[in-house]
Amino acid sequence: MKNEKTPIPYKIYLEESEMPKQWYNVRADMVNKPAPLLNPATGEPMTAEELGAVFCEELVKQELNNDDRYIDIPQEIADFYKMYRPSPLVRAYCLEEKLQTPAHIYYKFEGNNTSGSHKLNSAIAQAYYAKKQGLKGVTTETGAGQWGTALSMACSYLELACDVYMVKVSYEQKPFRREVMRTYGANVTPSPSMTTEVGKRILAEHPGTTGSLGCAISEAVESATSREGYRYVLGSVLNQVLLHQSIIGEETKTALEKYNIEADMIIGCAGGGSNLGGLISPFAGAKLRGEKDYQIIAVEPKSCPSLTRGKYAYDFCDTGKVCPLAKMYTLGSGFIPSPNHAGGLRYHGMSSTVSQLYEDGVLEARAVEQTEVFQAAIDFARVEGILPAPESSHAIKVAVDEALKCKETGEEKNIIFGLTGTGYFDMYAYQAFNDGKMTDYIPTDEELEASFATLPQIG
Amino acid sequence: MKNEKTPIPYKIYLEESEMPKQWYNVRADMVNKPAPLLNPATGEPMTAEELGAVFCEELVKQELNNDDRYIDIPQEIADFYKMYRPSPLVRAYCLEEKLQTPAHIYYKFEGNNTSGSHKLNSAIAQAYYAKKQGLKGVTTETGAGQWGTALSMACSYLELACDVYMVKVSYEQKPFRREVMRTYGANVTPSPSMTTEVGKRILAEHPGTTGSLGCAISEAVESATSREGYRYVLGSVLNQVLLHQSIIGEETKTALEKYNIEADMIIGCAGGGSNLGGLISPFAGAKLRGEKDYQIIAVEPKSCPSLTRGKYAYDFCDTGKVCPLAKMYTLGSGFIPSPNHAGGLRYHGMSSTVSQLYEDGVLEARAVEQTEVFQAAIDFARVEGILPAPESSHAIKVAVDEALKCKETGEEKNIIFGLTGTGYFDMYAYQAFNDGKMTDYIPTDEELEASFATLPQIG
Repeated sequence: MKNEKTPIPYKIYLEESEMPKQWYNVRADMVNKPAPLLNPATGEPMTAEELGAVFCEELVKQELNNDDRYIDIPQEIADFYKMYRPSPLVRAYCLEEKLQTPAHIYYKFEGNNTSGSHKLNSAIAQAYYAKKQGLKGVTTETGAGQWGTALSMACSYLELACDVYMVKVSYEQKPFRREVMRTYGANVTPSPSMTTEVGKRILAEHPGTTGSLGCAISEAVESATSREGYRYVLGSVLNQVLLHQSIIGEETKTALEKYNIEADMIIGCAGGGSNLGGLISPFAGAKLRGEKDYQIIAVEPKSCPSLTRGKYAYDFCDTGKVCPLAKMYTLGSGFIPSPNHAGGLRYHGMSSTVSQLYEDGVLEARAVEQTEVFQAAIDFARVEGILPAPESSHAIKVAVDEALKCKETGEEKNIIFGLTGTGYFDMYAYQAFNDGKMTDYIPTDEELEASFATLPQIG
Repeated sequence: MKNEKTPIPYKIYLEESEMPKQWYNVRADMVNKPAPLLNPATGEPMTAEELGAVFCEELVKQELNNDDRYIDIPQEIADFYKMYRPSPLVRAYCLEEKLQTPAHIYYKFEGNNTSGSHKLNSAIAQAYYAKKQGLKGVTTETGAGQWGTALSMACSYLELACDVYMVKVSYEQKPFRREVMRTYGANVTPSPSMTTEVGKRILAEHPGTTGSLGCAISEAVESATSREGYRYVLGSVLNQVLLHQSIIGEETKTALEKYNIEADMIIGCAGGGSNLGGLISPFAGAKLRGEKDYQIIAVEPKSCPSLTRGKYAYDFCDTGKVCPLAKMYTLGSGFIPSPNHAGGLRYHGMSSTVSQLYEDGVLEARAVEQTEVFQAAIDFARVEGILPAPESSHAIKVAVDEALKCKETGEEKNIIFGLTGTGYFDMYAYQAFNDGKMTDYIPTDEELEASFATLPQIG
């Protein structure tokens, strides 16, 4: 509900001195903690030592830390954040006017940096801890390319080597992303590739595959664990990533408080859960502590509907099955979305933390079709100026739907959504839409059943 | 010189209430006014009526107004500015650290909007006045695409038709820019084209031409003047454009004053002069009034050196010679830069206002080579995060040179430069540089003499 004491500017920027000094760990407020990662060989929870073979030490601690509510942001990371943060919380005056809605719409815009998205928030943290551990470099996968770009930027800044396995379909459709990564000094390999054993195996089994995040993860993990001085880093799904991304939610909360705005609804797009988890964390925390009953909505594509049609079960995080098992809402690690699906949000599973919050009713989920998402994106771009990423546009679509409901009911809700990034590198997808060539895709029940059959028999 | 009373944040954002409410018209402070536009048929100054056949009425008034020091920004334009302004004045702490310079470096970053540059500042103003005059639409040309994108955004917002003639080499090298414009509802035509008489004539004379801004201007003017309810708008060169762009300089000045920073040096890249003129206006004004002797530097490419090697003379603004004559530093309207030159700054002439300021010694000029510009761009991107446009990187190169001079002399100068935009749509150029395939090009004296021969015999 509205509660305005001061005129609200188009863009709320926090002062440097108001920026969060700590990340917020929502797990500390969860009664039902996210299920632990399991060793696929033993079925037992992964130990810190086992995880340390893949991940940096400090990040393993953060991954396993279900207790500390706040974790200090190291000064070096805080300084890097100052180069592109705080991000603005934008009041969508023009969108409200166009929709003629009594709702107040706000979006937290994470696109004002070269990675084009929120991914840089965790990239700099992970690169920092790798550097601090004295490592030579890190490996990772990237889908649409935002994460790879973000990690390249962070590694370049810290002078750390960076090897990126890029999902083949994106590597081919998004050559500009590849060049941005190269400009920041990263080595970029299309995945699946012949540079790893798991890549060779996947190519032998599926010669025409356009790749998936799951494949690329397997390759990046193998590349890190088979070399001295390297570790693997991941841009989504993990608890540590949600922790770093809580900077989004913390800034949002501070900005709202600064102007006495009471959020009613928080909306975020959900692929692996990094942006969503980060944005909603402080609000989910308040809800878990019984302080306020926010409506929290995760939006996913109908073509990759892990929350709305998936199973809550232990699954492999990667196609090659080299990673630990995670309990999550999943479509099965064998699920590969149709290539007609543009942009990110292609991952078969969902962050364990977000999955548990969903299981416990802290958040709800909606699935939307691709063409309605692009229509919402273009309508938004024309009045708000910003050309959104396809991923972010899932949240726009639902925010607009909710604002139109308010128009019917007359409710003056405060709707907050996450605008995770820009669509500058997604122009082929926009072109397909502009030319009327974009289609929708919804997997059949039979397809999902076949994919569920790939779930491991655990628990 | 340094004069710090408050700690200076990484990014200085003005409050909405601190944003300029007026544009500053530097011509009011010039003793030698920029020379008037001439009618090529009569050799007489263009009258308001003659100009009104091509340009919107209110913009003609602004074009001819050499007297009013300040002009109010209409509320509708001020509201639009709030969607993407104020732009940050960034303290380049990381670049200073890398250079180990005692200088303090600041850049005014205009890239945080979908047009990717400062061009939106004038696009919304011009579209607004066209709408207010009851026109159906506007036509324009675009080179690298920033201006066309900016105008598309402004027209889409105001529901005005928008026809863009895009220099053919950019149309082909930058398909993404084209798609952004289409996404905002513009009609985009590669120039020279067969849709205009002047386009047909140019194609007949130079069948293999990759186009130039001068050609595209001719086509856009013809397209506007041959149809009812259309006018032509231009993204640079004109006095009115510099007026609108003064928002950059005014914000910069206010931000500096807010933190008691005394600028010593202002550096901007110069193509047609829109960014440079806007950024330096208030500083040049103070210098003209004898208040402070700023060092002001225009940076241009050696491949298109209108200030450093051009003649100060009346010339055609366009290749097709359909526009009025302007007195400016020019290479001759027949000059077409080598296609190996990436990005913008390809125009044969320079804004009359900037030219007169240069002639009067208010600013100096430097020319730099393409490869050294890209090296500076990448060095900058790796420490400051932002991937700059090739155009903007000309200013980076000279700012770095000056900061290194300070390192030698120990001077703690405050260096301000304009970072006009991002390079996200220039990745083919970055790729060429990354692959070691980029070369430099400097026109020979003979080439320039041949081009000067195209100058009209006036004055």
